[in-house]
Amino acid sequence: MNRTDLTRMTKVEVIIVGADAPTVLDLIRDAGDTGWTSVSGISGLGHHGHHQGRLLFNQQATLEMIITVVPDDKVDALLAGLRPLLAATSGVMFVSDTWVSRPTYFT
Amino acid sequence: MNRTDLTRMTKVEVIIVGADAPTVLDLIRDAGDTGWTSVSGISGLGHHGHHQGRLLFNQQATLEMIITVVPDDKVDALLAGLRPLLAATSGVMFVSDTWVSRPTYFT
Amino acid sequence: MNRTDLTRMTKVEVIIVGADAPTVLDLIRDAGDTGWTSVSGISGLGHHGHHQGRLLFNQQATLEMIITVVPDDKVDALLAGLRPLLAATSGVMFVSDTWVSRPTYFT
Repeated sequence: MNRTDLTRMTKVEVIIVGADAPTVLDLIRDAGDTGWTSVSGISGLGHHGHHQGRLLFNQQATLEMIITVVPDDKVDALLAGLRPLLAATSGVMFVSDTWVSRPTYFT
Repeated sequence: MNRTDLTRMTKVEVIIVGADAPTVLDLIRDAGDTGWTSVSGISGLGHHGHHQGRLLFNQQATLEMIITVVPDDKVDALLAGLRPLLAATSGVMFVSDTWVSRPTYFT
Repeated sequence: MNRTDLTRMTKVEVIIVGADAPTVLDLIRDAGDTGWTSVSGISGLGHHGHHQGRLLFNQQATLEMIITVVPDDKVDALLAGLRPLLAATSGVMFVSDTWVSRPTYFT
């Protein structure tokens, strides 16, 4: 895709247990990013076993997907912060290209 | 990725307050697109302040993520419709490449 | 995007009625993949009519989005399994590039 009226940015999606979500949001803020979207109602299976979303009696076991979009000059700082957190937990992150219409909104 | 048995299309993800979701769906329909997926249970933080999903007493403040996949010849019409809506609201959109197995399903 | 410290993989997102979700998870397992993420609270409109998420009296009509990330050598097996299921149902799949920080986690 090569759209001249859109600006390429990097989308980072983190899937993590709900208890670690505030740490992810702190890391996003520390990296100088200003916005994020969180999706609840997530369940999943990874190498560390099954995580079921929306548990009634153990909210910490629910998963969240946190999506943020950052310009290139902020990606390294964000990933550097996320790596040790993900290595220490069962979280994963997916990094991909995305294009936005209002780049200044994300800086 | 270069898969000969898949067809490249453009995925448009719009994150917007729930009250504006019907307008997004109208714009998708107006652009000649036939399908969409909506994800509820969304919260987020943007330049316009915090939006918490699943509010009990003010459904209009909940966020939705609306995903649609369109062939290239329909992208411009869709984005032209979305831009003024997003500029007037706190919504954002992410545009990216995706590949599908049944392209006629999306036209 | 060309990040030397990340590994490119293929992300497959399947949107399907909840009743077919276990079959999708079986296909992911059969393809040798070990992890997935499922998003509930999904509604959508496709060629086969409207699907509303979170129905109280007919759980089978709810939609789910199942996300998995696989290395290249497992993509073909996964897609081969998914194609007949999607052709027989109202499900769709989106295939895209993504980059991960811990590739061994996904193999």
